[in-house]
Amino acid sequence: MNISILGATGSIGTQTLDAVRTCLPEARVQVLTGNKNILLLAALTEEFHPDIVWVPDEARANELSDILRHKGVKCEITTGEAGLIACAIHNNADIVVNALVGKAGLAPTLAAIKAGKDIALANKESLVTAGGLIMNLARENNVRITPIDSEHSAILQCLQGTVGTNKRLNNGFAGNAIEKIILTASGGPFRTWPKERIAKATAADALRHPNWAMGPKITVDSATLMNKGLELIEAIWLFEHCFAANSIETIGGAHQGRRENTLSKVEILVHPQSIIHSMVQFIDGAVMAQLGLPDMRLPILYALAGPARVANDYPRMDFLKAGALTFEAPDLDRFPCLALAQHAAEVGGTLPAVMNAINEWAAGQFLEDKIGFYDISALIAEAFGSYTIKQVKSLSDILEAEDWAAEFIISHT
Amino acid sequence: MNISILGATGSIGTQTLDAVRTCLPEARVQVLTGNKNILLLAALTEEFHPDIVWVPDEARANELSDILRHKGVKCEITTGEAGLIACAIHNNADIVVNALVGKAGLAPTLAAIKAGKDIALANKESLVTAGGLIMNLARENNVRITPIDSEHSAILQCLQGTVGTNKRLNNGFAGNAIEKIILTASGGPFRTWPKERIAKATAADALRHPNWAMGPKITVDSATLMNKGLELIEAIWLFEHCFAANSIETIGGAHQGRRENTLSKVEILVHPQSIIHSMVQFIDGAVMAQLGLPDMRLPILYALAGPARVANDYPRMDFLKAGALTFEAPDLDRFPCLALAQHAAEVGGTLPAVMNAINEWAAGQFLEDKIGFYDISALIAEAFGSYTIKQVKSLSDILEAEDWAAEFIISHT
Repeated sequence: MNISILGATGSIGTQTLDAVRTCLPEARVQVLTGNKNILLLAALTEEFHPDIVWVPDEARANELSDILRHKGVKCEITTGEAGLIACAIHNNADIVVNALVGKAGLAPTLAAIKAGKDIALANKESLVTAGGLIMNLARENNVRITPIDSEHSAILQCLQGTVGTNKRLNNGFAGNAIEKIILTASGGPFRTWPKERIAKATAADALRHPNWAMGPKITVDSATLMNKGLELIEAIWLFEHCFAANSIETIGGAHQGRRENTLSKVEILVHPQSIIHSMVQFIDGAVMAQLGLPDMRLPILYALAGPARVANDYPRMDFLKAGALTFEAPDLDRFPCLALAQHAAEVGGTLPAVMNAINEWAAGQFLEDKIGFYDISALIAEAFGSYTIKQVKSLSDILEAEDWAAEFIISHT
Repeated sequence: MNISILGATGSIGTQTLDAVRTCLPEARVQVLTGNKNILLLAALTEEFHPDIVWVPDEARANELSDILRHKGVKCEITTGEAGLIACAIHNNADIVVNALVGKAGLAPTLAAIKAGKDIALANKESLVTAGGLIMNLARENNVRITPIDSEHSAILQCLQGTVGTNKRLNNGFAGNAIEKIILTASGGPFRTWPKERIAKATAADALRHPNWAMGPKITVDSATLMNKGLELIEAIWLFEHCFAANSIETIGGAHQGRRENTLSKVEILVHPQSIIHSMVQFIDGAVMAQLGLPDMRLPILYALAGPARVANDYPRMDFLKAGALTFEAPDLDRFPCLALAQHAAEVGGTLPAVMNAINEWAAGQFLEDKIGFYDISALIAEAFGSYTIKQVKSLSDILEAEDWAAEFIISHT
């Protein structure tokens, strides 16, 4: 297995490398990309001997080059957008782990699919903004897209072996055996807080996530439940062709119409213990679930090697110590971002791309304590109010939507 | 699908016919067997038009014959042990549902396997007493054995699609991907009772099972946790070849040695809500579970048609109404039958057959309020103390063990 890892120094990237280090001795790392943490990138380069390493600009390239020269490690270093695309399509890799944060992940995803690489996708924004393009392109190029996301990995594991299912995700899961996906949510750090208290929450409050240690942006999304909204859209793109009464339109660029049918089939269930990572209810009424301790290395291993199970010595679930597993409905009043995401999922077109862009910026503002918690949803709602939704026929439609969002953002800063 | 149903008028039999009636319109019922409920058997014969109907003796055959003549229904009626075997191997059936109660189910199971019939097995005593013979015979005859038992069906559903898995259960599940089976138990009606109160429990107390409506014998077994012990042995026979570090001997007639390795890999977990029907932990640490409302028609449908999912309108699980899912360790002190069954599972040979026979009789005595609750385990323990375990090389070894048990029973009545 030859792996390229985009976003190697982040939370998912380092855990991917940990999984490679401990469980996949035969795997060969071909590409590493980093951003700010040059020291870590240098150490990983020394350990994994990739063909190419990427950093955003010349300054960091020089910094990295100096360290590597000092270590006596030889490695090609590239920079810039073109360099990142070159990394995504690097010849020696079979599978590209896309652990880039935010909308920067889209172009490399599309390039890698076109180059015939299987994709282990942690960058959910790719699917949120351009799910139709990605899934169509994956089908055309016979490329497998596996999610690095505990919920979607759980759903994929629940679907394993479903009759009619094709192992290559994008080709099918033709089983038509799913009645409902039950996407579980921890509820985030503010699950039990009254609205008045949430309104005054700071970035520091949001970063105290109860169950998962994650990057800062996704932790804010987890506090607003926008993360669950993004996952809802992600789940629809990944799995909508598996539903029983598949009355929605064919997925793809031309998709625009409302899709209540699919949306109503993805139930969001708050499960504060984060032990059940998600569930699938089949047309016979059976519910399959994947459970375990919160450990991203497991979905990473499954994304790389699944459906094969890779032995490891990670901590195991102990149900006697787990306490009770409980369930609640999500509160759309206290967490309006989820309602906004459900609306975007239902309406489709370019609206998820606009939502994602505004949210990415607003979450960043909140992280710097420049805006309040409910300003995030208020800004998205304001954008929804003034934006005219378009169909997604090509990448330019998405870029146009993101340009619109960028102007909206400028007018608000 | 052509189905023979042995034990058609019992709890599993009538639910199987309900599943056929409501969900499998293309299925054809070839054989029905009944015992005491001749009126029901006559009504089912009128509805499903089987080729043959069986009752134990001539008196009941005459009774049934009179009713059928009155209804204007023509059907061949057979009786006796030979008649039951003829039913099990009836040419027109592809699959035999064995829902007979107790050890009477073994001979028809073996006969049906030899005749190349797939078996949907509700009669867990067959596997408990003669698991090695059955699984070997099934392998030789390329016959599929699917469990009609919510726990084992759940395990089978969790294993679906496991890499290396062969759809035909007896051929393999070669995946070697299972680390542990987690067999859930409701804990029965006496789960929260102190030992002193359990000691005075009556048959009426035992028959108030919290979650499942079942036949009387299995309800007593559920109160003593012997049912879980029988299921443990059943699980070992059905699934032991799927375990990762498979250090136990080859299953089959020659099996005698201790098998702590497998036994330690089947954990019994009390889960009072009976929503998680059982779980499988894989070598990567992922736990898969099958959940749902307690409804035997679902495992019945899966045993008949699985891995295909058969659409139905049975009630669905509502996690918002389910309340908390909790877990406890089983209490072997208050429920000594489970410890006895674990011992029998570990030791193997003819001991499970002896245990099953003594238990079947003792449970019956308890149902008639002739003995107390703890007399059931005391009698089994006494039998274990005086019985000399033998290897199971053929059916005669099991019959010999059952003869020994019969003598033990006579000496105690």
